[in-house]
Amino acid sequence: MAKRNGSCVTQMHRARQGEITPEMRFVAERERAAPEFVRTEVARGRAIIPANINHIKHQLNPIVIGTHFDCKINANLGSSATTSCLKEELEKVDMAVKYHADTVMDLSTGDNLDDIRQAVIQHSHVPVGTVPIYGAMASLGDIREMTPQIFLDEVEKQAKQGVDYMTIHAGLLQKHVPMAANRLTGIVSRGGALLAQWMTAHKKENFLYTHFNELCDIFAHYDVAFSLGDGLRPGSLQDANDEAQFGELKVLGDLTLRAWARDVQVMIEGPGHVPMHLIRMNAELQQKWCHEAPFYTLGPLVTDIAPGYDHITSAIGGAMIGWAGASLLCYVTPAEHLSLPNAEDVRQGCIAHKIAAHAVDIARGRPGAQERDNAISKARFEFRWEDQFALSLDPETAKAKHDSTLSDESHKDSQYCSMCGPKFCSMNITKETVGADPSVHPMEKKLS
Amino acid sequence: MAKRNGSCVTQMHRARQGEITPEMRFVAERERAAPEFVRTEVARGRAIIPANINHIKHQLNPIVIGTHFDCKINANLGSSATTSCLKEELEKVDMAVKYHADTVMDLSTGDNLDDIRQAVIQHSHVPVGTVPIYGAMASLGDIREMTPQIFLDEVEKQAKQGVDYMTIHAGLLQKHVPMAANRLTGIVSRGGALLAQWMTAHKKENFLYTHFNELCDIFAHYDVAFSLGDGLRPGSLQDANDEAQFGELKVLGDLTLRAWARDVQVMIEGPGHVPMHLIRMNAELQQKWCHEAPFYTLGPLVTDIAPGYDHITSAIGGAMIGWAGASLLCYVTPAEHLSLPNAEDVRQGCIAHKIAAHAVDIARGRPGAQERDNAISKARFEFRWEDQFALSLDPETAKAKHDSTLSDESHKDSQYCSMCGPKFCSMNITKETVGADPSVHPMEKKLS
Repeated sequence: MAKRNGSCVTQMHRARQGEITPEMRFVAERERAAPEFVRTEVARGRAIIPANINHIKHQLNPIVIGTHFDCKINANLGSSATTSCLKEELEKVDMAVKYHADTVMDLSTGDNLDDIRQAVIQHSHVPVGTVPIYGAMASLGDIREMTPQIFLDEVEKQAKQGVDYMTIHAGLLQKHVPMAANRLTGIVSRGGALLAQWMTAHKKENFLYTHFNELCDIFAHYDVAFSLGDGLRPGSLQDANDEAQFGELKVLGDLTLRAWARDVQVMIEGPGHVPMHLIRMNAELQQKWCHEAPFYTLGPLVTDIAPGYDHITSAIGGAMIGWAGASLLCYVTPAEHLSLPNAEDVRQGCIAHKIAAHAVDIARGRPGAQERDNAISKARFEFRWEDQFALSLDPETAKAKHDSTLSDESHKDSQYCSMCGPKFCSMNITKETVGADPSVHPMEKKLS
Repeated sequence: MAKRNGSCVTQMHRARQGEITPEMRFVAERERAAPEFVRTEVARGRAIIPANINHIKHQLNPIVIGTHFDCKINANLGSSATTSCLKEELEKVDMAVKYHADTVMDLSTGDNLDDIRQAVIQHSHVPVGTVPIYGAMASLGDIREMTPQIFLDEVEKQAKQGVDYMTIHAGLLQKHVPMAANRLTGIVSRGGALLAQWMTAHKKENFLYTHFNELCDIFAHYDVAFSLGDGLRPGSLQDANDEAQFGELKVLGDLTLRAWARDVQVMIEGPGHVPMHLIRMNAELQQKWCHEAPFYTLGPLVTDIAPGYDHITSAIGGAMIGWAGASLLCYVTPAEHLSLPNAEDVRQGCIAHKIAAHAVDIARGRPGAQERDNAISKARFEFRWEDQFALSLDPETAKAKHDSTLSDESHKDSQYCSMCGPKFCSMNITKETVGADPSVHPMEKKLS
């Protein structure tokens, strides 16, 4: 292991020393915020800029994650033992970024993990996260063979490669494991299940908890942000908001303070499967117990009965929890619960969650959030079809759907579409009738 | 026109006379409610059973729509002038019902409207709605040629055919039309735009408003339910909750009382495009101003920028407004704003909104709503793949997605899927570790 001599290069450290870093300046411009405001939010821990110093060298475009900034989305990528190919993984990265992913996680669990991770980091302009216990498992036959040192070495290696944030399930303690026995779906986090198995076999406390300070040292040296994992997130509506889940969340709040004491950035992972009426409580308790550290949720899915469409069940819950305070929505794809996502699943997952995140920005009253909505609606009212496509989240799909019934190029100037035909187009009739003319609409000034 | 002699055969009329009809009994069983409770809700106007006496003859399976019953979904079908085919329309009916539509609307505006409508009614076991102004327009070159009598004759004809509910835009008055001139997207309801054009050309009040009593007479005679149309629903976020929209909604409340005075059933149509933070206000004002008549919303869509994916923007808003009180969610398909939906669009639209409606039932605490979620989650934990597929909203799609990576039949017994592979399956590890065994889970008793 490299000598680190207690060095700390994190954005939080520099923010607390009063420095406005180039990364803070960059994200401030993207968010139309003052750089000094970004600095104070990062110093306070209410926002993070996951930017490993070794990924910055590979032309990372930093982002800021926090409730006072635009809601972000993450795409989980990665191979598995049954389905794996480096080239396909890089295509998925491109697909994810093209369709608005703000971060990607490489969750590979198959072969060639180091090579895939290195390629993903060098290929990706957006922050890259990992769950290092997957890599640490690669050389082992079984989680029971894991030692703290094997894990720390893996973390150091990945940090050196340039991973921007890592999921660390340090809040899942021995006392929580029996709580999962009463659940309908037990432990559904892969990392959480592995750690529970390790603790049960060795009758010892979670080594991520006992070695948390060493992890902080590594993270401080490269500026890796903690994504404190929710190993006990509910995997079914029935298990939502139970004592196991909230017991772990409280520990994550304590760990947040310990990381912050070492100037290490933190976000908190959240559920999962949660019925709508229990969603807000998740955001409120997380904000309270975890001292307003950014909340990074997987959905939540608002029903269990829609495999094949869980990008939608998750977008519904994501929109609600984002409005309630979550800062980063991890996407779920149509493949969830069924198979490893392919490139098309990645696209579907990204768009669904970008919709949710954008709806959150509008509901939160983020500056300028509705400008694009107004622009596309104006184009719609004026039958500027090409502009409607260009302003949409997925121009190719919008155009293809339009052209499926009216493919002739002349219809790009049509004052109607195949939904209503020329005689029943409401927008057309409106213009003839009430003379609404958005070219002189007050909105005009706001848009220009 | 047939003589009606003031006859009234409506479910509301019979409910108010203390009768529990076969239709009330049927829906009570479907909803696990007491027949007497259904009767009082229908008598009170808080629920409707749209069941035209001439559709009952064609083996209608009645449903009940109201806040104290399961949240329902509607699928809009129908041809347009550019895209039309009777056979395809009936296929769409089958597709819609297969994928959980509780009602369908035939919104055809092309040729052979009477034939299509008749075929749809005879083909459909679920209630059928129409917007009769489309049919009334068929023989006219222009809305300005419309007369109240042409419209009433069309309504009588459709009522006789067996249409269960009709959209009537009687709340859009002359005074509201200028309000739409200040909007970004004017009037986006086809019926609303046509009526605005008629009122402007003739300088007369909306004939649906002035002839509302005659409409009530026809509806009472066949038991057609009003779906009081929101001709001024917002077509963009910018236009949401404006004076035009709420001005019309207030009139719909007055019309509700007038219909109820004649024992005619009523539901109220709602938006449209609404940002998340303005959704709840829509449900609350509708419930207050319209005396708790069932609320039937089109979405609402929570952003304007996702053409090609508006089934998702609408499912998000639909879940939220359903939880806030809406009783019937009209689907939106991926084709919205772009083209007439094809059969695949119908499937996507239905599933997305069934997800929303089911999430609503769970959040509202409807009896038994979560049983299917618990059953599929139990099957998931026990790797009963075939049961997972069977319990899902779209078994074929779930199975195809699973089989896309693990197609061999032997994998139907696999204790993992391609998402994680055998070494990283959290559910598998849980069972080895904490011994969670849902075969003896307390949930068991609830499910059996």
